[in-house]
Amino acid sequence: MSALASASHLERIERLPGHRVVLAEDAPLRLVSGAELSPITVAYQTYGTLNAEKSNAVLVCHALTGDQFAAGVHPVTGKAGWWSLMVGPGRVLDTDRFFVVCANVLGGCMGTTGPADVNPASGEPWGLDFPVVTVADMVEAQRLLLDRLGIDKLLAVIGGSMGGMQVLEWAAKHPERVRAAIALATASHHTAQNIAFHEIGRQAIMADPDWEGGAYFRSGRKPRRGLAVARMTAHVTYLSEPALHRKFGRKLQDRARLSYGFDADFQVESYLRYQGKSFVDRFDANAYLYITRAMDYFDLAADYGGRLAAAFADSPVRFCVASFTSDWLFPTSEAKRIVQALNAAAADVSFVEIDTDKGHDAFLLAEPELHATLHGFLSAECERLGLATAPLALLDPEEIGQTEDRVT
Amino acid sequence: MSALASASHLERIERLPGHRVVLAEDAPLRLVSGAELSPITVAYQTYGTLNAEKSNAVLVCHALTGDQFAAGVHPVTGKAGWWSLMVGPGRVLDTDRFFVVCANVLGGCMGTTGPADVNPASGEPWGLDFPVVTVADMVEAQRLLLDRLGIDKLLAVIGGSMGGMQVLEWAAKHPERVRAAIALATASHHTAQNIAFHEIGRQAIMADPDWEGGAYFRSGRKPRRGLAVARMTAHVTYLSEPALHRKFGRKLQDRARLSYGFDADFQVESYLRYQGKSFVDRFDANAYLYITRAMDYFDLAADYGGRLAAAFADSPVRFCVASFTSDWLFPTSEAKRIVQALNAAAADVSFVEIDTDKGHDAFLLAEPELHATLHGFLSAECERLGLATAPLALLDPEEIGQTEDRVT
Repeated sequence: MSALASASHLERIERLPGHRVVLAEDAPLRLVSGAELSPITVAYQTYGTLNAEKSNAVLVCHALTGDQFAAGVHPVTGKAGWWSLMVGPGRVLDTDRFFVVCANVLGGCMGTTGPADVNPASGEPWGLDFPVVTVADMVEAQRLLLDRLGIDKLLAVIGGSMGGMQVLEWAAKHPERVRAAIALATASHHTAQNIAFHEIGRQAIMADPDWEGGAYFRSGRKPRRGLAVARMTAHVTYLSEPALHRKFGRKLQDRARLSYGFDADFQVESYLRYQGKSFVDRFDANAYLYITRAMDYFDLAADYGGRLAAAFADSPVRFCVASFTSDWLFPTSEAKRIVQALNAAAADVSFVEIDTDKGHDAFLLAEPELHATLHGFLSAECERLGLATAPLALLDPEEIGQTEDRVT
Repeated sequence: MSALASASHLERIERLPGHRVVLAEDAPLRLVSGAELSPITVAYQTYGTLNAEKSNAVLVCHALTGDQFAAGVHPVTGKAGWWSLMVGPGRVLDTDRFFVVCANVLGGCMGTTGPADVNPASGEPWGLDFPVVTVADMVEAQRLLLDRLGIDKLLAVIGGSMGGMQVLEWAAKHPERVRAAIALATASHHTAQNIAFHEIGRQAIMADPDWEGGAYFRSGRKPRRGLAVARMTAHVTYLSEPALHRKFGRKLQDRARLSYGFDADFQVESYLRYQGKSFVDRFDANAYLYITRAMDYFDLAADYGGRLAAAFADSPVRFCVASFTSDWLFPTSEAKRIVQALNAAAADVSFVEIDTDKGHDAFLLAEPELHATLHGFLSAECERLGLATAPLALLDPEEIGQTEDRVT
């Protein structure tokens, strides 16, 4: 962890590296809820160089607890960016050829406007006065950013989990601005089980007296225990049972025998406690509430009279959809629902189910088959546009610092 | 809920119907941890009549949050006992023919000695001074009870989930006292994922300031919010994704549209909140810690040099093992591990995997194939012993009051 881990939210934001741009100053951003925000700030990172034709831009959409620091060293955790395996020279998102843009989502806590920022009307942090945002609102903020950057059309938009929801939203609402859409480990709506796990996390946060109805900025305390429990719950859903068995099984933590107490006897307990505790140093509890809510609310078909295929009618976008065999949070059945809708809309779609035991987190990890598939898909798009292609570099995940410990 | 729901623990225990017996007065109960308890109280219920030969006794072992009130009206919740579909006239455990015994487990909170009871050494409730108990300790307390009741040999021992763990323990440690062992939706050890979900629940309880290091009896407050989150987490693991989809999908609760807030917009949220809140009226938070710990510690093979088959060497017991296709908490692969060990030990075993979407909770619910299988298995045992058999009555789960809402 860096010194930023212990800084207050506003101190941290001021000191974060990278770009911040103020948008929606003249015309407010009208949210799906009907509320309006003006202005908004969007914090983003770029990797690589935009070409003269502005035809090599790839928008990376992050997941629930990700942020704009997809590659490089994360300024708060000091670890590799969450998609360092995907973004870099010779990688799938080859920064020698592509201009990669990754923005913190609306409602987030790494510099883009969210509940920890100051409400101009009150002069103190928004807390629960911040309006509920949706995946569509996140995409709208990204669209304003691309307008400001002068990027009319993306070579590709790509993301996993909630990032994949943004990808689907982009393709549905702005098909003229997207050539290729790559949706990984995602779904066109949040299921009852998905909502249930998020609700547990929210209830854990709200049960923490230090949450104070969302106004914890007043006391200076944070709902650390509640947020840690929320993180632990989510974390288990990101892993598969076989991966947990392979990594931990019933192995004991720093002891030869059971303690007959409530310490972390088992490695899996110690691991989860660590995941919970370290998360609270980099994430805002209210932002966790808002972003999980945005995911719960996501139901793309509902915007199209309940027909998902209608979201993709006459779409010129080329789609790539990938799922992972051991992902029980966003299972292959949900990916197939997307693919069936795309087929029903006669859209151009490639679908791959990757055989892995790594669960939902597989999209973040070293999955050679996934990387080869995406590389092939993007190379075809480059050839179509007359952009250069290049072979995929061989990577050492250990060297990049992205191994099986979840990095977002 | 009855008036008992709001009574203090000790008041409630005093007023509970049914039997309580004091055991281990002369010789203390030596626990697996090495700690000793003396005396212990065991609270139990019986259904049906013990025959003159004492050959018709069936021991029912309850799961994590179950108790001795398997049938009849539960004195605290006012609802049907947790296994009313299984225990009663004409049912699988036919109370016209069998003498059914069900005891609250050691470490529980419904009358058997547990952390909410008074520690004789201090004169105040045990709290975290209560020794950690194991599944083997629970079985040992049941053995003392059967000794007191003069039952040398059980016709059958039966249970699901943690109840199934007790069944396996009984068969392994006391094969001479069990004719038939029926283990449902269970495993011979707790997996890393099982431990992880329990640890989340424990951390939620311990994160609640009202838990006060387990000494909440001093303030009179209870860690209600933490225990509710623990229950919500566990509850989701008891259901399958298809069942959640079928019951709730994305249906809204008492509203026509999304609220764009953090109320329970979705029925599944409302349902979980209710499950969490109602649980704290009938269950003790420290007992939840102790019983989840007992399950985590369960690893039958570890007591036999790591060879599960050795636990069943030369066993005269007839086994019936059942799993449910949609049970992801105790999946069929775990049941098969038990069956393989029994086969390796040349034990007599029937195995059935029931096709259902009801998840882990299926063992509590109306599953005609399960009931028919168990009825056939028990009838064969009765014929072998010259006990009467009877057809299985047709049941209306609605009438019995046991539908898909989890009853334990």
